[in-house]
Formats: sequence, C-alpha cells, structure tokens
Amino acid sequence: MTTRIVELRQGILKKNDELARGLRSQFETAGVLVLNLVSSPGTGKTEFLQGTLRELISSGSRAAALVGDLETDNDARRLAASGAPVRQINTHGICHLEAEMVSKHLDGWNLADLDYLFIENVGNLVCPSSYDLGEKIRVALLSVTEGEDKPLKYPTIYNSADVAVITKVDIAEAVGFDRATALKNISEIRPGIRIFETSAKSGVGMAEWLAYLAELRPLR
Amino acid sequence: MTTRIVELRQGILKKNDELARGLRSQFETAGVLVLNLVSSPGTGKTEFLQGTLRELISSGSRAAALVGDLETDNDARRLAASGAPVRQINTHGICHLEAEMVSKHLDGWNLADLDYLFIENVGNLVCPSSYDLGEKIRVALLSVTEGEDKPLKYPTIYNSADVAVITKVDIAEAVGFDRATALKNISEIRPGIRIFETSAKSGVGMAEWLAYLAELRPLR
Repeated sequence: MTTRIVELRQGILKKNDELARGLRSQFETAGVLVLNLVSSPGTGKTEFLQGTLRELISSGSRAAALVGDLETDNDARRLAASGAPVRQINTHGICHLEAEMVSKHLDGWNLADLDYLFIENVGNLVCPSSYDLGEKIRVALLSVTEGEDKPLKYPTIYNSADVAVITKVDIAEAVGFDRATALKNISEIRPGIRIFETSAKSGVGMAEWLAYLAELRPLR
Repeated sequence: MTTRIVELRQGILKKNDELARGLRSQFETAGVLVLNLVSSPGTGKTEFLQGTLRELISSGSRAAALVGDLETDNDARRLAASGAPVRQINTHGICHLEAEMVSKHLDGWNLADLDYLFIENVGNLVCPSSYDLGEKIRVALLSVTEGEDKPLKYPTIYNSADVAVITKVDIAEAVGFDRATALKNISEIRPGIRIFETSAKSGVGMAEWLAYLAELRPLR
C-alpha cells in the first residue's frame, strides 16, 4: 500500500514539476517576478502582502496577487483594497497550491503588463514545500508569536525557501520573542539565507524588503 | 489518477478508523480519558499542555502525554518537566498523527494506571482532522494572534472538535484580538461548542479548564 502511495505521489509531483517549469519560462518571458509566500496559518502573510502591494502600487509598480485558502475569499478582498488585481484560489480541503491551480487562475491576465506577481500559499508549514509553482523566489514567513523552534521542527519549508521574513516584530517584546535563537535556527536550516525583520503594522523593516524587491526586478 | 488517489486515501482512512476503534475500546476498558489536541503550529499547544499536566500531577491525578512533531524532541522534553510520563512521536514529514503511531508508542505503559492521556498532534490545521486517534475528546486550539477568521478558513478542524480553547489571552489586547468575532466564528462552524479562554502564562481560564477535565473523568 505504502509503495503504491509513494509512486502515485511521485507521479503527481512529477506532473506538478513539469507544469511549474512551463509556468517559470512563461513568467521569465513576460518579465514578471513571481514570489511564493509560505507560512503557518496566522503568521500574517496577508497583512504583510497587503502592505507590500500598497507600497508597490503607490510607487507606480504593477503588482498582482493570487491567494490560496481552503475556503472563503476574505484574503482576496483584503488584498484587493490595495488597488492591485487579486484572485482567490479555493482549494476545498487541499493543504497547498499546485502549479495547475496557479495556471488556471492566470487566464485573462497579461503577464507582460506586470512587474510582480505574488502567490500567497495556503497557510501550512508542511504541504506547500513539495509543490513548485514556477516562482522565482520562495519566501518563508515566521511570526514572533510562533516560537523560535519552528524552523527546526518544520525544516523542509525553510530549507526550500530563498528568503525568510520575520513578521509582527512590533509585538516581539510583549510575547517574549527570542530574536537571537530565531535567527540562529533559521540559518541553521538554511545557511546564508537573507532574513527580513518586519512589521506590516508599524512599518518597521518594510523599506528594506521593498528595496530588495526593487533590486530583484529584471530591467526591461 | 484522482480516482485512484481517493480510493487509496479511503483505504488508509478506513484502516486508521479500524485501529482507532480498537484504541478507543482499549482506553475505555482501562478507564483513561484520552484527549487529542489539534491546532496550527505556534498556537501554544505545548505551553497549554505543560500547564495542564503540572496542575493535574500536583493535585494527585495521573496523567501522561504523547506528542507529535515532524522532527525534534523539544516538546517531549518541555512536557516531561511537569513530572508526567511523556513520549515523542516523530512523523518525519507526515503532517498528522495516525492511530498506528499512537498504538506503537503506548508499549510498556499500563493504561489502567492513568487518569488522563493527552495526545498533542502535529501542528497543522488541515491534515489531523481526518485521522481519528481513538480519543474521547478532540480539542481545537486557537491563539489570539492567529486571526479571528481561521475557523471559517479551516472548517474541518473546528467541525470535528468537541471543545475549543482560545490561548494566549494575556496578549489579546496587544494584538488587537476581536473576541466577539472569534467566538461567533467558532460557534458558526460548530454550534454549541464549549469554548475556554485561557492563558497558560498568566493562568487565566485554567481553573475552568481543569474543572471541565475533572467532570469528564469517569469514576472508578
């Protein structure tokens, strides 16, 4: 039984990888920078992305977002307030986004008109790590309320990330966040990873994050 | 492909259900009350359980715990500080506990010597909902930092719960927790569910929770 499951799982992942490769080349041709945001539920992906989109749009960048959730379109409605085009993907019980879901939700968007496309994955520290969505940058977020040991307990999600973002630093003191241990644990799982320390609420660290996004954008 | 996956999944769930039924009757015969704690990573299951075990042990109850994580035995070490017998289950990539894992980790424990057995599931708001572990009570935890909309976004985990526990209420104000909305959303998904509002740190709400546990214990 287990062997068959593993084979089927590998088949699904292989199909996903092929679709993701196609998406990646489509994104590169269009010159859009694609980022996949992964974290636990409640880390503040939506609030962080809301702040990011608001800044990008107001400074004249063209940014859009896809947002994955099992149910509800709450997040899409929150993100759309930034003025960016946003689409909700409901996975109805599936704990991650897949390349095919992303592909289907791009219909009618002209990617060449975009500078940035953000994909907010389903909040989950396990499932999304195996599914390539064709993104260039995978961003793993960790909030100061989650516990400094999460990178050690969920190594695959941090291991597959290109950048780490610590969120909610405005309440770091109130929750007794151990910054040094958190940074050490993230770097232990993914040596050399760039780490941003942010609060979408107070604005701390957002300028560094936006400067990083600007650096990454390919010139046309 | 999807059909075969669904069939295999149903096969696995059926096998798990059968094992869970066996466990449930074993627990009932032994007279031990078994609780399965489910939540997102970082909700504070371990801290809540640590406080619960400490109180139970110091008041003369006999309690033990199994704790599931993908990797590390940090949580077992934290819980063992209460003086209760504790065992770690490492799932190595699997995002939930299964009845078989529980069964294997009971070896050598005399269940009839226990009043309470707590099973702290892997931190995940999706995967654990489908896996019965033979528990009598499923407890879904939600921290004040996670966002009041989580019950609506992850209905299955709240829908399958017998009791809800809100954690970290000591920082509710600092994080702008909307208590009324959280209570409304939990009750919308699971009408009539009993909800405890707690802080393992300050001790708020723990007396009510412990009184509930005492009520549930079958008399011998």
